[in-house]
Amino acid sequence: MTLLDKTHNPHLRSWVESANVAGCDFPIQNLPFGRFRRAGGSDAALRIGVAIGDQVLDLRAAGLVDHDDMNALMAAAPAERAALRQRLSDGLAQGSTQQAAWAAALVPQSACELAVPCKVGDYTDFYTSVHHATNIGRQFRPDNPLLPNYKWVPIGYHGRASSIIPSGTAFRRPRGQTKAPDAAEPSFGPCKRLDYELELAWFIGQGNALGEPVAIDQAEDHLFGVALFNDWSARDIQAWEYQPLGPFLSKNFGSTVSPWIVTMEALAPFRAPFTRPEGDPQPLPYLDGAANRAHGQIDMQLEVLIQTAKMRADGQAPTRLSLGKLKEAAYWTPAQLVAHHTVNGCNLQPGDLMGSGTLSGPSLDTAGSLAEMSVGGKQPITLPNGEQRTFLQDGDTLILRGWCEREGAVRIGLGEASGTVLA
Amino acid sequence: MTLLDKTHNPHLRSWVESANVAGCDFPIQNLPFGRFRRAGGSDAALRIGVAIGDQVLDLRAAGLVDHDDMNALMAAAPAERAALRQRLSDGLAQGSTQQAAWAAALVPQSACELAVPCKVGDYTDFYTSVHHATNIGRQFRPDNPLLPNYKWVPIGYHGRASSIIPSGTAFRRPRGQTKAPDAAEPSFGPCKRLDYELELAWFIGQGNALGEPVAIDQAEDHLFGVALFNDWSARDIQAWEYQPLGPFLSKNFGSTVSPWIVTMEALAPFRAPFTRPEGDPQPLPYLDGAANRAHGQIDMQLEVLIQTAKMRADGQAPTRLSLGKLKEAAYWTPAQLVAHHTVNGCNLQPGDLMGSGTLSGPSLDTAGSLAEMSVGGKQPITLPNGEQRTFLQDGDTLILRGWCEREGAVRIGLGEASGTVLA
Repeated sequence: MTLLDKTHNPHLRSWVESANVAGCDFPIQNLPFGRFRRAGGSDAALRIGVAIGDQVLDLRAAGLVDHDDMNALMAAAPAERAALRQRLSDGLAQGSTQQAAWAAALVPQSACELAVPCKVGDYTDFYTSVHHATNIGRQFRPDNPLLPNYKWVPIGYHGRASSIIPSGTAFRRPRGQTKAPDAAEPSFGPCKRLDYELELAWFIGQGNALGEPVAIDQAEDHLFGVALFNDWSARDIQAWEYQPLGPFLSKNFGSTVSPWIVTMEALAPFRAPFTRPEGDPQPLPYLDGAANRAHGQIDMQLEVLIQTAKMRADGQAPTRLSLGKLKEAAYWTPAQLVAHHTVNGCNLQPGDLMGSGTLSGPSLDTAGSLAEMSVGGKQPITLPNGEQRTFLQDGDTLILRGWCEREGAVRIGLGEASGTVLA
Repeated sequence: MTLLDKTHNPHLRSWVESANVAGCDFPIQNLPFGRFRRAGGSDAALRIGVAIGDQVLDLRAAGLVDHDDMNALMAAAPAERAALRQRLSDGLAQGSTQQAAWAAALVPQSACELAVPCKVGDYTDFYTSVHHATNIGRQFRPDNPLLPNYKWVPIGYHGRASSIIPSGTAFRRPRGQTKAPDAAEPSFGPCKRLDYELELAWFIGQGNALGEPVAIDQAEDHLFGVALFNDWSARDIQAWEYQPLGPFLSKNFGSTVSPWIVTMEALAPFRAPFTRPEGDPQPLPYLDGAANRAHGQIDMQLEVLIQTAKMRADGQAPTRLSLGKLKEAAYWTPAQLVAHHTVNGCNLQPGDLMGSGTLSGPSLDTAGSLAEMSVGGKQPITLPNGEQRTFLQDGDTLILRGWCEREGAVRIGLGEASGTVLA
């Protein structure tokens, strides 16, 4: 874990006034990285930026980098990353001598197109919420919801990198094969059970060479940071296609990621111990380390909101579907995911994305998908305006939010990941 | 399908004499693409090359491209690709006025390092052999070996792109969690059931935009060509980890690809109709097209050889494990894989790799894995020198070969994909 340093000082304030507003996701203690271009310049190369208040600091314009390659920046060793964070903190702090020069390198976020924050080489999706695994498993196997490997293996599978899309992008409802339980043959058409999945995206910083596993207590040296991630899922397509090799077309039509990667350094004040429920097995040695036990987990709030087409037309704000805590949802820590992923020698590369899997908490009002909240489509959810949902309808916008807050630290946020379903 | 043109003329001969030797994989009718650097120049950029006999034509040195970006070349429209093939054929043919200039652009293959032939963005593995699916299914479900979706859905899942390695690369036996059926808890250690999988790698040429499916009869416009592919598999790790989301660490420690992509144009003389066994369902309309029915399949021989450490020490050549035919193994055509992969809107990109899945034929001597040949490790195979194998041992080298031959056409080959297991 990164140690606390003066960049975490809760009394620090920025000369960018919007960063000092209470409840702002991007105070000077956060400093998340992303890629942007000025709106309208669709042919311009993406630049590396850091969010501060409602502005973006253009890192190249500020003289902090001499390239636009976010993945190269992510590959830096932890000490180098800490040094860049310190320079950013110093330069953006009230009283900085950089203010005049850097003010010219600021762009309002509202005037930017925010992209997928880096080039994702490989995307792996995990399954870290035991509650999600149990809730979904119960729909398939009422008597035996959780498979015997779950508490031993951080279950994961490979996802599709090419269809990861930036927040704010609408996408078409997928079509595909489905088969009703009582039908003799499958049929083809639009997905009827379209769902969201509340996830986090852990981004890899430094890579490891093929054949060289990463030990658990070094694993966080290979993590760059975290963003919000919505792994949209076509449940009816999934049910027909997934045996025996796992989900495929039910997932790879689009996955939405939020634009800002909150770094492991920024998360340092919000770390929590890794614990196992009493009676559960302790992890095998390659998944167990002193640092991981002491502060492998993270204290984070995660919220899902929906705005239907009718709500939009009626001028109603998005309404909350769920609010939960990462540490209650996740059975495995991000360090354990890195150690597991590489234990066979698999190589991770800067910019690779590890999805957490759907982060459902212990109760249904903290569930991270509609399949869970509506109990497989059997119990519709009623929204405040009277509309009902089992699965997503065309025109629905889904919004994920996340933030960390703790006594003695300044609240930091992840921003949001939003996406809209088109017919 | 690409039409036959004068580049397929069986009477064509090259001024590169090694290309005219009977049985050569790379006659002038083949002209496969790959990436290479001169041996010893490990820091030099990879260049695009075309194999001709035992030589490589350096495309940039020959003035045919002005860059080293294989993926950009693969993205070209079919007409542009055909034109490049015609220029290559004209320039390498006996009597060409290019001979003097291009002779200086030849490098012996033996003096080259041959790389993974392009940058693979996403790698998808399919499961196209009904015999493999049945053989493996029988080991898990004796009474019900083939799942109900198999004859409707071209089953596929995402694989790991970062660990695709070039032919000739040795790799370490993976370690991981396994659980014996009668054990109370899993244990950790080296894989004990390491296997190979005989596959083809279909490479994408032109991509498609997210949300825009590719119709079956346009699907081959998006295929660039094919290489050999060994999807090494740790069967014991797979058995414990794969439920419910599919194989992960059992596959992503390394996958070997051969260095030369044989283009769809080169395969034109070897096309075969797509057929279904009597009584099997016809494909749904999105997987069924006139071109696919007429010549969607390919006539290709596929061979697997092994050379153990002892054979190497004793100076013995590799010995054959199996010899089979693609069209007897594959239940789906490459065009069907493209149409299925994109039907939900998923975007494919130039250089993406679609594995065929293990290409097992109808009998065990045409099976594409040891798990099948040894019936799940129960019936050891005896090699000519008396050694036995159920699964791979340290020091074993596995070699895949493939070629097309047909009356009236010149035989073309895919070269080989080899790899060696390290302790």
